Amino acid sequence: MPTYKAPLRDIRFVMNELLDFPGHYNSLPNGEDAVEVTDAILEEGAKFAENVLTPLNQTGDQQGCTLNDGVVTIPEGFKEAYQQYVEGGWPSISQNTEYGGQGLPHSLGMVLNEMICSANLSWGMYPGLSHGAMSALEHHGTEELKQTYLTKLIEGTWTGTMCLTEPHCGTDLGLIKTRAVPDDNNGYKVTGTKIFISAGDHEISENIVHLVLAKLPDAPEGSKGISLFVVPKFLPDASGEAGERNGVVCGSLEHKMGIHGNSTCVMNFDDATGYLVGQPNKGLAAMFTMMNAARIGVGIQGQGLIEVSYQNALAYARDRLQMRALSGTKAPEKAADPIIVHPDVRRMLLTQKAFSEGGRALILYTAQLVDKVEKGAEDSKQDADDILGLLTPIVKAFLTEVGFESTNEGVQVFGGHGFIQEWGMEQFVRDSRITLLYEGTTGIQALDLLGRKILMNQGEHLRKFTKQIHKYCQAASQQESMHEFISPLSELNKEWGDLTMKIGMAAMKNREEVGAASVDYLMYSGYVTLAYLWAQMAEIAQKKLAEGTSEQAFYQAKLDTARFYFQRLLPRTKTHAATMLSGADTLLAMDEAAFGLAFEV
Amino acid sequence: MPTYKAPLRDIRFVMNELLDFPGHYNSLPNGEDAVEVTDAILEEGAKFAENVLTPLNQTGDQQGCTLNDGVVTIPEGFKEAYQQYVEGGWPSISQNTEYGGQGLPHSLGMVLNEMICSANLSWGMYPGLSHGAMSALEHHGTEELKQTYLTKLIEGTWTGTMCLTEPHCGTDLGLIKTRAVPDDNNGYKVTGTKIFISAGDHEISENIVHLVLAKLPDAPEGSKGISLFVVPKFLPDASGEAGERNGVVCGSLEHKMGIHGNSTCVMNFDDATGYLVGQPNKGLAAMFTMMNAARIGVGIQGQGLIEVSYQNALAYARDRLQMRALSGTKAPEKAADPIIVHPDVRRMLLTQKAFSEGGRALILYTAQLVDKVEKGAEDSKQDADDILGLLTPIVKAFLTEVGFESTNEGVQVFGGHGFIQEWGMEQFVRDSRITLLYEGTTGIQALDLLGRKILMNQGEHLRKFTKQIHKYCQAASQQESMHEFISPLSELNKEWGDLTMKIGMAAMKNREEVGAASVDYLMYSGYVTLAYLWAQMAEIAQKKLAEGTSEQAFYQAKLDTARFYFQRLLPRTKTHAATMLSGADTLLAMDEAAFGLAFEV
Repeated sequence: MPTYKAPLRDIRFVMNELLDFPGHYNSLPNGEDAVEVTDAILEEGAKFAENVLTPLNQTGDQQGCTLNDGVVTIPEGFKEAYQQYVEGGWPSISQNTEYGGQGLPHSLGMVLNEMICSANLSWGMYPGLSHGAMSALEHHGTEELKQTYLTKLIEGTWTGTMCLTEPHCGTDLGLIKTRAVPDDNNGYKVTGTKIFISAGDHEISENIVHLVLAKLPDAPEGSKGISLFVVPKFLPDASGEAGERNGVVCGSLEHKMGIHGNSTCVMNFDDATGYLVGQPNKGLAAMFTMMNAARIGVGIQGQGLIEVSYQNALAYARDRLQMRALSGTKAPEKAADPIIVHPDVRRMLLTQKAFSEGGRALILYTAQLVDKVEKGAEDSKQDADDILGLLTPIVKAFLTEVGFESTNEGVQVFGGHGFIQEWGMEQFVRDSRITLLYEGTTGIQALDLLGRKILMNQGEHLRKFTKQIHKYCQAASQQESMHEFISPLSELNKEWGDLTMKIGMAAMKNREEVGAASVDYLMYSGYVTLAYLWAQMAEIAQKKLAEGTSEQAFYQAKLDTARFYFQRLLPRTKTHAATMLSGADTLLAMDEAAFGLAFEV
Repeated sequence: MPTYKAPLRDIRFVMNELLDFPGHYNSLPNGEDAVEVTDAILEEGAKFAENVLTPLNQTGDQQGCTLNDGVVTIPEGFKEAYQQYVEGGWPSISQNTEYGGQGLPHSLGMVLNEMICSANLSWGMYPGLSHGAMSALEHHGTEELKQTYLTKLIEGTWTGTMCLTEPHCGTDLGLIKTRAVPDDNNGYKVTGTKIFISAGDHEISENIVHLVLAKLPDAPEGSKGISLFVVPKFLPDASGEAGERNGVVCGSLEHKMGIHGNSTCVMNFDDATGYLVGQPNKGLAAMFTMMNAARIGVGIQGQGLIEVSYQNALAYARDRLQMRALSGTKAPEKAADPIIVHPDVRRMLLTQKAFSEGGRALILYTAQLVDKVEKGAEDSKQDADDILGLLTPIVKAFLTEVGFESTNEGVQVFGGHGFIQEWGMEQFVRDSRITLLYEGTTGIQALDLLGRKILMNQGEHLRKFTKQIHKYCQAASQQESMHEFISPLSELNKEWGDLTMKIGMAAMKNREEVGAASVDYLMYSGYVTLAYLWAQMAEIAQKKLAEGTSEQAFYQAKLDTARFYFQRLLPRTKTHAATMLSGADTLLAMDEAAFGLAFEV
């Protein structure tokens, strides 16, 4: 069975040494509380992830979820773990104190989230979906809705879902058919079928608060006619507790490639009582409040799975004896050398390590932006929001793409044993596969990045970010020892702008150029962004090594990993740059009918 | 449920137009028989794959295999399908006529194999493993062994396995512990445990012929002390039929990520009667006879899975309506445009198409080499064998790597639905995952290519191949219209040699440079090899289009796919070239103990 140890040393490196979280927190209102509790949250979160969630991950995968007589049963131990989570006060950490929250910055919840995703992704989705519901209610709900629902979600006694997708539409939500008709009590009757509803039904919590997209009777066509509703599983009674059953049931459970421990439901709404969240027909805006947080959350899933896969691949590579090193025997006392001596095994391990640690830095950098947008000084909010908007699709798509690659490297380190369920490595692959799909596929993130977040503002937000990188390069290039990092970084940073300009120009002639370039563009952007963070980490490590430190091996490993990233992973930008410029014609030339002529008679 | 249609038009394009199989067969002894039956084999093979095997693929995945009271039960319908296969005479196609075979070239069996792998990989492994056993017996068995076992395998009433791996060794077979002690009847008593034995036990056939690696009592240490034995499940009785049960039993079944329909067994040998195949202590050579064929077979699995994933992704992309094209509505009569209008969806489909069709060309090119080595004119045998040796690890590792990528693109085209088992797309991913592992991982193939097949002969075999490509480029560059293909191909062909030289030089100083560069080197080699084949296919298409043809759309699609390959996939060589030259230091610098310092306390 796989094991997991929370990487506290590295989390502290990123929080304290790379990103100065203490300083960051102290710049926020009541930030000193956050500084004070950070350590306790890290330590307690680590224990919970290691001791409670990790042991339930493989059994959860094997048992899966079942639906009998309308009751969804989830894997053994999941409910008890959730109770511990609620008793520990975890759901309320970053929530509004007016509704029972602890008012700590969101970034602290995101640090915890990495550990949960590493330990047990399927379990993590039960509380995880509540976050989207909470943020939609917090930002768009009436005071009454907040008092009724948000307080319960923050308490953790109730959980939330996001009900968007329907059988015929996922990306294209303008097509939804679910209808909401006003009733006589300031509410609505919601009718329709939603699919792929994560944590859609279960008995982990006393009630489930569904956030549902639906159309009003007089709604305009398409995505401008979508409204958001809150539809509880049980209608609150007079005392505000879960009362009468509402008209929403789980119709069936999906059989999936992975995340077996999470109940992915078809939810049938049949004249279910619901309440409008936000303005009529403005549901898409309210939904994006949930969605942006959820997208960063999925990026964390990608990174968390790399970390746990890496830890187990490393243990195996140290233990498994197979062949001698090409340069001569390394462990003469053993029947063969441990496979970690072989360069190609190290290539796979270092790929995982570089993406996990680099991904962590990216997530926590993004987490600070989330804090700043939420609670930061007014004059820095806009910049933070612009860069957060830019980084959100990168966090989501880049970290899940390299996450899937990395969990596969974890299998590959195990050789044939990686394919065997008992070892647990293939579960990480199956679980991570969903992260490239839900909350918007990689392709959708790429369009969001290039189309909406960059070209729609003529690259202004991107220039804010590349200027920041440029300034960093100028400062760091003063040090001779940093040239190996700064020279490629500043070159790529410049190229990033040039590529954007070229694609923007091409797109003015043909809008399809955006879609043709987008995924390569997103991946390119991810590699450069991670290089920016790895360069800074290398700089810190060099400084520590020069000063002298009792943790010389830790900082040397950080520097070695930075070198690996720059020499072995960053050259992938070469291919992405070439292919993104190859244009839309190669993609659009072929007649649709001709795609199948090799096999259609 | 996924569907499958054998791509006969494209198979005929490759066989008749690209590789002149009729001419090739006519150059072999009795080759006119092959020419005569080719069409019938294609047509009948297609029917068998489409109508018999395809419907059993998803049910086979769901039912899996079970072990009860020592009896292995495989999915419903698999045995009946096998009986049809035997009745159709399929097992004997390429086998020696002296032992009941039809004596047709091996390439014909390989064409059939693609269709079987597309239709039902798990099923295909039951007859598939027999091929290795047949070729080991054919090349290394005594006349008595051939009469007893080979005839039955060719008939198909018995099937075969390859028993190599043990719990503590896969790659490093020198470590095996299974022992063979001479008995009093010219035989041996074999004792030990083998794992990961595909089709290791079942009741599909009357008997199972295990080819087993074991050590003799006086065997030298390591891989020079391995011998090969044939160990039947049932000992043949006086009439040569399956008689008394031998001392070999299935101890347990592995639970795997994919290929659920195939019984992957732990096989326990306990004083089982066996017979030596080949010379004592020369088992590794005999094993490589099986292994080389098996490796090409796994490459075919990779390609076959791309094809079936592509066909289903294409159907979905034509059917699924989602969003409008960025350049404006394409299907105004529908609620949204079919997703095949979106450039990024086309990018994924074309990636699958280019790898499937390019992979098919590579496999059939390799298949001709197999024929030539086996039955060709004496003066061309050595060249064929040298190039076959070079291409075998490329076929195995490159086609399975891009195969795994491509089956994942198939999932991605389906969005969230790709993750749902019912659609069948995720099964192709799970099934294809094993192909990167068994019969030698990608890393092992890469070492075989760069270390053994190239550097051990100072690049002589590679030069034979690059010279051939060079000559082709010189001839084709006479045509203006071919420049878009020939110019990048000849540049890369030259660079291939340069890179080899550089790595060879570096390896003379440090042997670890081979392992450090190998996987990038293999992938690079694969892309250039496929470019060589795609250039030729483009040339044929251009000629047909210039001449005029009733199949204009087919040839135009071929040309468009070639362009896509050159502009969108071939630039991956840029990254591989850069990373393979980055050297071993980045990989070896880190102290083994330091790998875990981010999470180990």
